[in-house]
Amino acid sequence: MYNFNAGPSTLPKEVFEEASRAILNFSNTGLSILEVGHRTPAFESVMDEARSLVRELMNLDGDHEVLFLHGGASTQFMQVPMNLLNDKEVAAYTDTGVFASKALKEAKLFGHVEVVASSKDKNYTYLPKEFHVPATAKYLHVTSNNTIYGTQWKDMSMFEKFNVPVVADMSSDVLSRDMDFNKFDLIYAGAQKNVGAAGVNLVVINKNILGKVDRVLPTMMDYRQHVDNGSMLNTPPVFAVYVCMLTLKWLKENGGVPAIEKLNNAKATLFYDTLDSLPLFKGTVEKEDRSTMNAVFVMDNKELEKEFQDRCKQEGLYGVKGHRSVGGFRVSMYNALPLESVVVITEVMKDFANKKG
Amino acid sequence: MYNFNAGPSTLPKEVFEEASRAILNFSNTGLSILEVGHRTPAFESVMDEARSLVRELMNLDGDHEVLFLHGGASTQFMQVPMNLLNDKEVAAYTDTGVFASKALKEAKLFGHVEVVASSKDKNYTYLPKEFHVPATAKYLHVTSNNTIYGTQWKDMSMFEKFNVPVVADMSSDVLSRDMDFNKFDLIYAGAQKNVGAAGVNLVVINKNILGKVDRVLPTMMDYRQHVDNGSMLNTPPVFAVYVCMLTLKWLKENGGVPAIEKLNNAKATLFYDTLDSLPLFKGTVEKEDRSTMNAVFVMDNKELEKEFQDRCKQEGLYGVKGHRSVGGFRVSMYNALPLESVVVITEVMKDFANKKG
Repeated sequence: MYNFNAGPSTLPKEVFEEASRAILNFSNTGLSILEVGHRTPAFESVMDEARSLVRELMNLDGDHEVLFLHGGASTQFMQVPMNLLNDKEVAAYTDTGVFASKALKEAKLFGHVEVVASSKDKNYTYLPKEFHVPATAKYLHVTSNNTIYGTQWKDMSMFEKFNVPVVADMSSDVLSRDMDFNKFDLIYAGAQKNVGAAGVNLVVINKNILGKVDRVLPTMMDYRQHVDNGSMLNTPPVFAVYVCMLTLKWLKENGGVPAIEKLNNAKATLFYDTLDSLPLFKGTVEKEDRSTMNAVFVMDNKELEKEFQDRCKQEGLYGVKGHRSVGGFRVSMYNALPLESVVVITEVMKDFANKKG
Repeated sequence: MYNFNAGPSTLPKEVFEEASRAILNFSNTGLSILEVGHRTPAFESVMDEARSLVRELMNLDGDHEVLFLHGGASTQFMQVPMNLLNDKEVAAYTDTGVFASKALKEAKLFGHVEVVASSKDKNYTYLPKEFHVPATAKYLHVTSNNTIYGTQWKDMSMFEKFNVPVVADMSSDVLSRDMDFNKFDLIYAGAQKNVGAAGVNLVVINKNILGKVDRVLPTMMDYRQHVDNGSMLNTPPVFAVYVCMLTLKWLKENGGVPAIEKLNNAKATLFYDTLDSLPLFKGTVEKEDRSTMNAVFVMDNKELEKEFQDRCKQEGLYGVKGHRSVGGFRVSMYNALPLESVVVITEVMKDFANKKG
């Protein structure tokens, strides 16, 4: 099987194998990873290792804390403004896709939201190039990669010029490319694409931005509580954190972020070059904004789309169906997807186009 | 290994084996359970089965909905009052342990809390017998079993007489004994004791109590959103839900709640009878309030406690150390703990007492 699913998505084979073993016997304890106490040295070392691997892979400075939290990125949509935005203050949001739009909707419950850039006018098929962020904004929220539409901000340093804290939802491209992660005051990412399995959030936070809102925060929503408790405020999603640790270790052993970026670029180049060489298939977004993680394309002929879908199935190409809001196809090429999988799907596309084109 | 840990805790051997296999090949898909899309028939049938198993095991009526949510019971501490309690309204809380106390602390952020019963005066070593609940209370919150102190309300029908909706945190004894679950308007339980693995919450809710607060709820906090989306509002903690499904299936195949209640009573009787027969060990709570799930005891001599701790380690008895707030020992006997494990630990206790007593 070649798994191009948009999330949950493929993970390294070694991770599956080690996780499978740990369910029967975790770290030679004679116990399953599912039954060990979370406040035991055996699990605490998993949590510590996962957090320090993120620190190392991102080259984080001492101001930044790493947390693994419950709830999925959708929980961060509310937790971010709850912690950072007072009722009468303004937060700047970019509206570049389904999840960006959901994030700004939640922020409106906690303060004023100014949508400083939007690509909604063209069904999110591009990223806005020029826009202004008011200096009074408490923070600017961006979605680094738009999973459903397949667009990705290419230069993540462009947000620095606005001189306001930058909060980035990196759910679908975190750790896929090198950047100065310390320039972000808050990064969050549902784990189920590049970090591990579904059921946990990676949150990287500059602790200096905390403690500045007036409202009293529920304990589980307060980032400071999680920081003070070493990401173990309550029982963590033990197994999901373990899978993150294994996946992060795999990333480090394979050269870290710079190496995976090269591989991701190679996969994306191969894919998009093939796509552009075959008139039967049409990419749906502006070329300059194309995501290295999620390639979205359609065909003019819906009958042929159906045939190509069936062909993918026959060839063991899983998860290529497009999101219902776009239709067509979506090929996700996260960190753990081998180059070989892209070779296979592009060969299938070429063969299909040859026969039908 | 005999695992008496208080949570995460032992699960049936069959569950470990099937979960381990599913990480390599889930339901003959050729894919890992960690990489399948959550909006695929393969996973949707897992979610549906988990929800309908709860419905069946609890004999739920049509008013009650079953959800599997992110976040652990600690998230429910805030989510319950957020959904059920207006600013100026009163909720009645019972303060019978660490988690009960945490629950009422969060509720205070959303309305008025009246503590109608408390056993804090004697370090939570008993359960209050007589108390009054104002008829104006929007709901009464109870913690059915106090994991840390080892007390358990024996008659869960006693709360009906107050004629207010009853909300129960059943994290550490849900599905361990028969009762009329439909009498509760809301039940929640972190999964990592009787339901499955850490990283997911079971929530059972009478949908008629929803939609009555004035505040606007963040999407992820609104039970109605989760109900309307079939417990798939965002990417669920896929693997944790899968482990719940396997554990619930095991429970059904082994006779359901009435059968497990018999087994749990047999384990508790054997354990407490042994404890009471050995003067070296002392139970810490009122006998009538003793939990069938968590037995807490100490020894007068701290040196001997250390020796017994070492002896347990030698014998492969895992997770018997008491919580730091009580000290001594805690033996947890959740659904999946075999009677044999209790036989083993009671034999070790008897032998130790013979040699030292």
